[in-house]
Order: sequence, then C-alpha cells, then structure tokens
Amino acid sequence: MVMSPAVNTYPLSSYTFGSKEAKIEKDTSVADRLARMKTNYLKEGMRTSVEGILLVQEHSHPHILLLQIGNTFCKLPGGRLRPGENEIEGLKRKLSSKLAANSSNLQPNWQIGECVATWWRPNFETMMYPYCPPHISKPKECKRLYLVHLSEREYFAVPKNLKLLAVPLFELYDNVQRYGPVISTIPQQLSRFQFNMINNETDDKLLL
Amino acid sequence: MVMSPAVNTYPLSSYTFGSKEAKIEKDTSVADRLARMKTNYLKEGMRTSVEGILLVQEHSHPHILLLQIGNTFCKLPGGRLRPGENEIEGLKRKLSSKLAANSSNLQPNWQIGECVATWWRPNFETMMYPYCPPHISKPKECKRLYLVHLSEREYFAVPKNLKLLAVPLFELYDNVQRYGPVISTIPQQLSRFQFNMINNETDDKLLL
Repeated sequence: MVMSPAVNTYPLSSYTFGSKEAKIEKDTSVADRLARMKTNYLKEGMRTSVEGILLVQEHSHPHILLLQIGNTFCKLPGGRLRPGENEIEGLKRKLSSKLAANSSNLQPNWQIGECVATWWRPNFETMMYPYCPPHISKPKECKRLYLVHLSEREYFAVPKNLKLLAVPLFELYDNVQRYGPVISTIPQQLSRFQFNMINNETDDKLLL
Repeated sequence: MVMSPAVNTYPLSSYTFGSKEAKIEKDTSVADRLARMKTNYLKEGMRTSVEGILLVQEHSHPHILLLQIGNTFCKLPGGRLRPGENEIEGLKRKLSSKLAANSSNLQPNWQIGECVATWWRPNFETMMYPYCPPHISKPKECKRLYLVHLSEREYFAVPKNLKLLAVPLFELYDNVQRYGPVISTIPQQLSRFQFNMINNETDDKLLL
C-alpha cells in the first residue's frame, strides 16, 4: 500500500511577522527581465530557479504564503541559483534573503521537503510548461517548486516593499487569471498529501 | 538533496493491443450517474474511486493512455472501489477489468506506484476539487489517481465499445475544454518525475 505523505500545518497565528529593508526588483518590466535572462544565458547557460511552498492553516484549510509586489502581482519566495549551486542549499539561501531577519539567531529552520513541480521555459518568453516541449534541446530555464516544512513557530521578516499573504487553496484553484499557471495549479500538486492540521490552541489549553 | 523519482517509459510500439467484449456504461446520462451515486451513497457512504495513469512514450515525449467513449469523452482506466476494498488491490482489479485479456496468463503486471492527486466531490454534482472544501464534512466521493509503472512489454485487451488513445502531455496541458479539470492537469502533477525514455530499438539492434 502506497501511503500519502503527511504534512503538518500550523495556524497562521503561530507565526510572527516583522519587516526589514526593501528588496528592490532587478527589472522594472517583463521586457527588461527577458533581456537580462538572455544576457545571463549567454554567460552561464540554462537558468535554474527554485521556489518554496510554505503552508499554514486557517479554519482547517491549507493556505500558501505568497509575496505580493504592488497591488496585483504575487510570487512564491525563491529565486535563481548560482551556477553549480545545490538546489536545496540555494533555496534555503533564497528563503532567508526574502523572509528571514538579518540577525543570525532568528533564522527560520528551513526544512526543504518534496519537489512538487518542475516548469520549463523553452524560449526567452513568458510561457512556461510543466514538461520540456518536444524538439526543444536547449531550454532557457528550469524552475523547481519545493514544499517547505515549517516548524510550529517561526519569525519572518518581510521586505518593506512586499506584502506577505496567506492565500487559501480554494482561492488559488482554477484562478489562472489572478495567479498565473504556476501558482494556480499548486492545489492539484498538493492534493496527494495528507494535511495534519495541528491546532496549537489545544496545546495552550493543556498548559492552563 | 531530495531527488526526483524516476519513471521508466517505453515506446508505444512495445505494447500489443487486442480487443474484448464491450463494457457497457452503467449510466446513459450525467443525471443518471449522479442519481445512482446518491442511491449508492445512502447504502454505502462516501464513494472511493481509483484511476491509473499509464505512461508510454513517442518521439521522446510522455503520453498517457486514455479510454475514449463515443467521439469525445475520455477517461482514465479505473473505477469505484467496493466498500472496504484496498485502493491498490481495487485499482489492479479495475485495470484488469478495463484493459486485460480474459485469459489469466495474459494479465499485465500491474505495478501501482505513487499517488499523484486526490479529488473530492462535495455534493452530488459534477464539480470536483483537489481539496475537500472548507465546511464540507461529508464529501460524496474521493478519487485518487495513481501512477502505474508498466513493464517493457504488455498485452492490452480493449473493450470493443471503447478506443484506447495515447495522448501526449502537450495535448493535455491547458486543455480543460477537451479533457476536463482532472485529466488536463496531469502534466503538472507528473512534472516532478524524471522520465527515463527507454528506446528498445537499441536493444533490437544489439540482438542482430
């Protein structure tokens, strides 16, 4: 019998959120971003990026932490690996850069779990696919999404120019218009997991 | 380092396809189907169904085997479990009923692998979701999709009233109109796997 892997999720209220200095976006437009991607490709070859799915719960339903830039655009925390960098170590570095306090004694315990999806960019264009399309021998980017198993309590420091949102799976599902193809199909990719919704209010009661 | 699980896929041409007696559909309309679901629910509680994702390759691109009924409707091989039946054993039984010859010495070696998705039906309606929606305490159906690892050579017997199609991932992707929400997002669910495309033409050459 193949069992579903289990994921413990804790209430949003068990985490503490502060802020830190702004993380300025490197590109001011999609065209700039694709141009920088091309320059980097000529120097370093295929871009590899990694992103983390951080889960919390509210009302016994899983929510994902997303970073919002401006009023509409949302992204997962993560980013581009350095040439040759290990995916897991690189994702920890990126998560700390986006969400950890500068103080080294407040670093979250990043436990990188299962890879849940891989997306490919065949050309210097915005379109990505969940497979490398046939006849594409030199994809321009490979992006991998990993589940991040959060501890029961953590402190997150959010860059001042970004907002951190906890978005429920039912809001992401079938909402490609708002969240794009990568984020809107995360509910399907997570559906194989069994969520243990741990409600630490019970723990608090036990302490009384 | 978390590695991607590997899946061996073999060319479509390495499998043999025959036919067998028709499998008559139990319902002739969606309304009939939902009515039968309701009757069964009152007797047996939540319906649990299991479906298999059988992969082959063509032109080094993964394809999924789908059963086509009439000219348009496609489904994965699988079906409803008996009350209390083990999911893996039940899926093997259903795969044999849909795709195996009647002769017991021609039964494929069904190796049931990873669960790739779970879908929930909250009401006696066609809509399903990749999570149990909040406030639904008594879902009416839970459907689980499993990867089936095919051996290099197998004989499949297809019911005369159905067609077996090998559909490439690029045809399924973003094609909810043709394949529905469950099948059209299989490419995203499979994207975490690494496909070893084994081309047995090389083996044939070695035998010469």
